[in-house]
Amino acid sequence: MRIFWWILSLGISFPACGEEGLWTFDHFPSAEVAKAYGVKIDEAWLDHIRLSTLRLTNCTAVFVSGDGLILTNHHCIESCLAELSFKDDSLLERGFVTAKRTDERRCATQLADVLVSTEDVTAKVVNALQGLGFKAANEARKKLLIGLEADCEHASARRKEGPLKCQAVTLNDAEYSIYKYQHYQDLRLAFAPEGRIAAFGGDPDNFEFPRWSLDFALLRAYDKDRPARTPNHLQIDFRGPQAGELVFVAGNPGFTERRQTRSQLEFERDIELPAALLRLAELHGRLVQFADDTTADRQLVEGPLDSLENNLKVRRKLLDALHDDSLLERRSTEERELRARVPMDGPDPWNEVEKASERERDLYTREHLIEGGVGFNSILFRYARLLLRAADERAKPNSQRLREYTDASLPRLEQLLFARIPVHDRVEELTLSSSLARMRDWLGPDDPIVHRLLIKDSPASLATRLVAETKLDDPAVRLELWQGGKRAVDASLDPMIELARSLDGDARSLRREIEDEVEAPVAAASLRIAEARRKVYGAAVYPDANFTLRLNYGTVQGWTEKGASIGAFSYLDRAFERASGVEPFALPDSWLKVTDSLDLHTPFCLSTSNDIVGGNSGSPLIDSAGHLVGLTFDGNIHSIAGAYWFDAARNRAVSLHPAIIRLALEKVYGAQALLQELSDQ
Amino acid sequence: MRIFWWILSLGISFPACGEEGLWTFDHFPSAEVAKAYGVKIDEAWLDHIRLSTLRLTNCTAVFVSGDGLILTNHHCIESCLAELSFKDDSLLERGFVTAKRTDERRCATQLADVLVSTEDVTAKVVNALQGLGFKAANEARKKLLIGLEADCEHASARRKEGPLKCQAVTLNDAEYSIYKYQHYQDLRLAFAPEGRIAAFGGDPDNFEFPRWSLDFALLRAYDKDRPARTPNHLQIDFRGPQAGELVFVAGNPGFTERRQTRSQLEFERDIELPAALLRLAELHGRLVQFADDTTADRQLVEGPLDSLENNLKVRRKLLDALHDDSLLERRSTEERELRARVPMDGPDPWNEVEKASERERDLYTREHLIEGGVGFNSILFRYARLLLRAADERAKPNSQRLREYTDASLPRLEQLLFARIPVHDRVEELTLSSSLARMRDWLGPDDPIVHRLLIKDSPASLATRLVAETKLDDPAVRLELWQGGKRAVDASLDPMIELARSLDGDARSLRREIEDEVEAPVAAASLRIAEARRKVYGAAVYPDANFTLRLNYGTVQGWTEKGASIGAFSYLDRAFERASGVEPFALPDSWLKVTDSLDLHTPFCLSTSNDIVGGNSGSPLIDSAGHLVGLTFDGNIHSIAGAYWFDAARNRAVSLHPAIIRLALEKVYGAQALLQELSDQ
Repeated sequence: MRIFWWILSLGISFPACGEEGLWTFDHFPSAEVAKAYGVKIDEAWLDHIRLSTLRLTNCTAVFVSGDGLILTNHHCIESCLAELSFKDDSLLERGFVTAKRTDERRCATQLADVLVSTEDVTAKVVNALQGLGFKAANEARKKLLIGLEADCEHASARRKEGPLKCQAVTLNDAEYSIYKYQHYQDLRLAFAPEGRIAAFGGDPDNFEFPRWSLDFALLRAYDKDRPARTPNHLQIDFRGPQAGELVFVAGNPGFTERRQTRSQLEFERDIELPAALLRLAELHGRLVQFADDTTADRQLVEGPLDSLENNLKVRRKLLDALHDDSLLERRSTEERELRARVPMDGPDPWNEVEKASERERDLYTREHLIEGGVGFNSILFRYARLLLRAADERAKPNSQRLREYTDASLPRLEQLLFARIPVHDRVEELTLSSSLARMRDWLGPDDPIVHRLLIKDSPASLATRLVAETKLDDPAVRLELWQGGKRAVDASLDPMIELARSLDGDARSLRREIEDEVEAPVAAASLRIAEARRKVYGAAVYPDANFTLRLNYGTVQGWTEKGASIGAFSYLDRAFERASGVEPFALPDSWLKVTDSLDLHTPFCLSTSNDIVGGNSGSPLIDSAGHLVGLTFDGNIHSIAGAYWFDAARNRAVSLHPAIIRLALEKVYGAQALLQELSDQ
Repeated sequence: MRIFWWILSLGISFPACGEEGLWTFDHFPSAEVAKAYGVKIDEAWLDHIRLSTLRLTNCTAVFVSGDGLILTNHHCIESCLAELSFKDDSLLERGFVTAKRTDERRCATQLADVLVSTEDVTAKVVNALQGLGFKAANEARKKLLIGLEADCEHASARRKEGPLKCQAVTLNDAEYSIYKYQHYQDLRLAFAPEGRIAAFGGDPDNFEFPRWSLDFALLRAYDKDRPARTPNHLQIDFRGPQAGELVFVAGNPGFTERRQTRSQLEFERDIELPAALLRLAELHGRLVQFADDTTADRQLVEGPLDSLENNLKVRRKLLDALHDDSLLERRSTEERELRARVPMDGPDPWNEVEKASERERDLYTREHLIEGGVGFNSILFRYARLLLRAADERAKPNSQRLREYTDASLPRLEQLLFARIPVHDRVEELTLSSSLARMRDWLGPDDPIVHRLLIKDSPASLATRLVAETKLDDPAVRLELWQGGKRAVDASLDPMIELARSLDGDARSLRREIEDEVEAPVAAASLRIAEARRKVYGAAVYPDANFTLRLNYGTVQGWTEKGASIGAFSYLDRAFERASGVEPFALPDSWLKVTDSLDLHTPFCLSTSNDIVGGNSGSPLIDSAGHLVGLTFDGNIHSIAGAYWFDAARNRAVSLHPAIIRLALEKVYGAQALLQELSDQ
């Protein structure tokens, strides 16, 4: 905080400091690294790291052998474990160990992408938008980018290595690229430890350090039913890094708002976060009580509970961060500084954003509940809306569709629609009735939609009836509606489809209002702010995170908390001390029965000053030689505020130490073949 | 908002405007009323109203006959209805109608007080504190006021009308009085409608207008087993008031913070309200799910759910109010204005309050959970702590005890301890485990108390064991420990007593820290701010609400909401239109079967611009002639922000119209004797 202030008041032109920075691979500040650490990062190093790093659905992963072996976090493949489980045999609980490759089992919904190249299309976008008003520009930009994505995919379909997946990416509110990915669709589970050790400490220890969670798992990419050939992969250095050593994290940070204006942060503090927290806390209470009441059902809600608890903790800390007035004050200072240094024609863009945020305060709640679907929290409702909208949208030309129904998006939609996700009626009733009740709370009983749905029904009775009568839990029914297109969907009398249909006109207009009255003016103003920032700081501004590939550097170090020094490493001995035997502090038998054979001084986790956020889970921690020296799975509690700013003094990434990975595979799980494959390079 | 600003910038010396003002009876602005409305309010009028108005445990009520008949809100006597109910016969559900006085049934825990006189003791306090530092002054003031209360009660014990109840009251942070109350201990239920009509619209309609909740009930005060003689009572004018008519509300507004500083409001916005909302939302989710799962248990949690929903709505709207930056800005402006007009020696008192608020940010969470008991939400735990502390405190001289264990407080404690409140194990386990889980969330697993309690237990297993093993659900066990005093409590091995004992040292130090480091410096600084305010505005500043008797004036009027005009009255016809038959919009059979005989144009509720807050429930709405023309039971949604400021344009009180009271008693419930008693005056 003090450092940031100091830079601004001296007007120094390099706004990122210390280990801050979510750099794209083509603008990595190698010169700064060379100057500060005497380490040379060249193009070959960067290319090798980039081609070894993968993007999963919500996480990062890394190739660790030439035969497609992938290392990522256990918590990143929980849905795969759930898919491969049976009622009396939960892989989440007992883990999964293979003796040979033929035992590896496919995760149907798991996908992985490797970024092979990027193409700058900024000039095309700028040309296309010239002279347009902000609403028209917002529309035109979306259409152009959809078209460029589609062109890229068509062109790549002729490649002999297989077609590429193309994604339009906006950086810094002002730069546009097409990112091209090699795509892996056949991923198989090779190893996972028991949930008890993977998530040791559970929600209480989440975002804490020191830490003892064995949060890793191994997948393997297959190509035509054979292990994929992956010459670009990282070799593991099981010794791990030294305290103070320079380390890098490559991965896909999900979302930061370090360039948002003060008024946008205030909107989040006042409206978005409190509403989300209240909704999630209520739902959490219902799920906990559901699990408490009928022990047999507990495992139905374990997955949702874990993710809800993580979600609540993150948002609670985000709100705390926004309640620190000095953060907002710093944002104002930055805005004043830019205003003073770059005289602008036309209306002040920060005021324009503020006006749009004011408008969003009026529109947000209803739009979020009805178009955002937050008032209809049900897997079955999401199927219904997806089928309904896809039928309408697929009938339009690609570039005129809603963003999430373009040709490039359809494979993902099909995957969502046909994945073997178990639907449990009682859980559906719970989540749907809870969200309907929240909608009534927030919109009031006289809102037209609330009135129509809930005048003759309670949230619970409506949810129960819808869940009981819909047939969308049957994949065959969904398939028929998907294939039958608009005619089949229009003819459907399924009550969930009817609900989605009855909402759709309102939902689309609410979305349109947000797009035209909030998104469009914000995009126009943000572009002008971004241009001003570039004039002052040049290319040394890194873009906010958006779940695309980034690289950053830091060092192995702990931090100081309320005067006490926290070391950079945790060790195995304290995991055994902490293990009280009661969840979430219970170790699995596999560990308890080999305790005597383990070296208790083995490092378990480590803290580094890398700048990471959610989405970086599963990222490789890399040394200057390009070796893997850790597997990032979390940040400390201060890293949550990293959504808004990087606190160099306290923001830390938390990684699994490679020594504990070796110990686990060798001494606990007897996974000698996999260990051999990881070592043999 | 604009009005307030305008007054400040012109430096006009009367800070309350329009209908704003929570006036004590001895500083009621009769001259202003005469000037604005041409109505003369004299001492006799004021005395009559004061002596007709009662204070209940959390509400207000009013005498409406010379035989002790009391009118208040249905929602104010829910605990009485619960006490008088049996498992298969819920008075909350079916209501209670008496044909004759001998059918009236006593509510054991209901008490009522009438303010008979007040004594200004400011000079005594000022003298006693001269020359003391702020910690010593804070302690000395508490002791002195405890002593003055006790002296007053001893002196009054010799009165032939019976002993008075005495309460030390602080007004405007700078004035001290002893309030003397006539005390009614024998209150009996005479009439209550069914819960369905009393709370028609439920939580969705709570704080809304127009409104159709028949929220009234009748009690009777008894004295030596005979109806009390109550010459001071209000006559009901069943015609009700006209639109635009001047009306008064007498009652006990609970709590406002209109004089708190900006930093105190920010503390509430950032720390207190978000924590409370999250805790309550989670608990709400658990209770809803509990009620959903096992229908037989639903009625166990109906009462807690109602109060929780009210609580959540209020706090949500309080947070919204604090998120309006213009409110905080107005507070800053007022502070600057006062600073500019009253030069002060010594440190700036607003800065002193801000420093204390900063300190409170560090201390609050742990103190609130452990000393405040929010981490141990259980009736049985509250019994345990009460018994433990009372044993320790009663062994000390009266003036050295914790505030809530003085001689004057003991009768209330005994009442709490021995009331017939049903304790349901499963509900206790639910509330206790939910609060233990929140405590672990907020303090982290390594907090010493959390670690000690929850290292070998989950919140659920600890709660289950404590609830199963304690004997404190047995009133005889509680009585024995209460009578056995310190020796008996020290010897007790009851696990709930042991838990309270194991926390008590920490809990008391946390409280001491808050008292010395927050409360004491705030009291000292607030006194200086209050003195400055008095210099500028004179006696025309009304004190913040503190659940003592106040009077305010307003007129019958609706308001404008988003451009639409909302009328001042609701009528019976729309209640029938709104009645969908599904809770909470279901009317009871008693109404449905007489519909044809009812005049549907009967006014139901009315909106007035009186300044009321929680605690005013059950307040008489009074016309200039001193007749009762309504029964206040709610405010509109904007009235919630009345905790911080009075928005003359939109803040409205909501009262039951006397015409609907007459219609209900006469046509629906056939309560002719009661109606006769109300009419016969």
